[in-house]
Amino acid sequence: MSWRATVLTLFPEMFPGPLGASLPGKALEKGVWLLETLDIRGFARNKHRSVDDTPFGGGAGMVMRPDVVDAAIEAVSDRPGPVIYLSPRGRRLDQELARELAGGPGVTLLCGRYEGVDQRVIDSRNIVEVSLGDFVLSGGEPAAMALIDACVRLLPGAMGSEESLSEESFERGLLEYPHYTRPQAWIDHGGVERVVPEVLTSGHHEKVRRWRLAEAERITAERRPDLWSAYEEDRNSASKDVR
Amino acid sequence: MSWRATVLTLFPEMFPGPLGASLPGKALEKGVWLLETLDIRGFARNKHRSVDDTPFGGGAGMVMRPDVVDAAIEAVSDRPGPVIYLSPRGRRLDQELARELAGGPGVTLLCGRYEGVDQRVIDSRNIVEVSLGDFVLSGGEPAAMALIDACVRLLPGAMGSEESLSEESFERGLLEYPHYTRPQAWIDHGGVERVVPEVLTSGHHEKVRRWRLAEAERITAERRPDLWSAYEEDRNSASKDVR
Repeated sequence: MSWRATVLTLFPEMFPGPLGASLPGKALEKGVWLLETLDIRGFARNKHRSVDDTPFGGGAGMVMRPDVVDAAIEAVSDRPGPVIYLSPRGRRLDQELARELAGGPGVTLLCGRYEGVDQRVIDSRNIVEVSLGDFVLSGGEPAAMALIDACVRLLPGAMGSEESLSEESFERGLLEYPHYTRPQAWIDHGGVERVVPEVLTSGHHEKVRRWRLAEAERITAERRPDLWSAYEEDRNSASKDVR
Repeated sequence: MSWRATVLTLFPEMFPGPLGASLPGKALEKGVWLLETLDIRGFARNKHRSVDDTPFGGGAGMVMRPDVVDAAIEAVSDRPGPVIYLSPRGRRLDQELARELAGGPGVTLLCGRYEGVDQRVIDSRNIVEVSLGDFVLSGGEPAAMALIDACVRLLPGAMGSEESLSEESFERGLLEYPHYTRPQAWIDHGGVERVVPEVLTSGHHEKVRRWRLAEAERITAERRPDLWSAYEEDRNSASKDVR
């Protein structure tokens, strides 16, 4: 069974969008994953076919109606995996959550627009809120795309030879070391010659491994004290385990 | 002068994608912002027109060549605003950074694919690394779309009447309060009647305001201890200022 992404949206024409090309697009063609979009507007039932209305309590903006959104969720309630509402109030997406979701049968993603979805839908269904980060988007769709992309590349058979899962950011709790490729000596726009670090052309595999680890540690310590503390704690408890 | 997003990518066909509909799409049509994409592949110069090569030091995957990427950046070096490389090693995008970027003339976004871009390009240009969060994408494009979306909705004239900037997540350092709309009484899929909180239909504006603030505080304290601590500190120092 292929991993299945089901997207509930007012803008189904946005999909597959960036998910239709490169790695996720090739994986979609190969059947590594399946994409289904459902137009929430198709579940509007009153004579104006409205999907939203003004908020109780006043204020600007529009809120998506609970009856309409719930009918859309009901229509795909047999799809496998959790129902996720993309919202800045949710649990933040990280590599651990992406791995967890990629390891399951799929996800159903509810994309809000305007001020969001009536709270009663979230409360009455077993809906998990997931956030891309501490910023506000015009709707859930770009967040759904990022979430799907993060999951799809982890699926068996999704990666081509250009890509690699090995030693990437967060796999060991570290940011990734720097990459270099040809030309070995390159003149930058200011006329400065920049040569690839010598160790990388030395042919000493163990020295390369140690340099990359040291660079990953340096960059993590400099840029992300939070990740660095967690990494150091893990390392200390691991060395205790060995004793 | 309209806000200008310049995107350097191996997959220009991904754009505008989700940015071509709804709020960002309407704003694009109205000329509130401009989108320019540049195909990095057009700057490949060797006979195979290759944009990537194997990494020095060995390992799986491909790295984008410094000469090719740099030539693409050079071609748009007169575009306004910072050059940003989307990378999990970067500063995390948040609402503050989105406001800062939206307040400027625009951004140039460099999207990596495969293992990423040769480090020498990042080092030799004044390139800011920005990350969407602690997860890995198949390329920078979905991240670029989210970043552009977060900025565009903040531009003057971008919002329609369905949307509102007032009292949203992070504007006061809090997550957003819950929203409700018609029908006032709604039967959920389990047959339970769910009624909108009474205060919201009371017509007492001050009571509504206080309820919403209390809900935003409750949700933030429950879900995001980190934001809650910062908010409490701000509140305490503000009350000291008044004395």
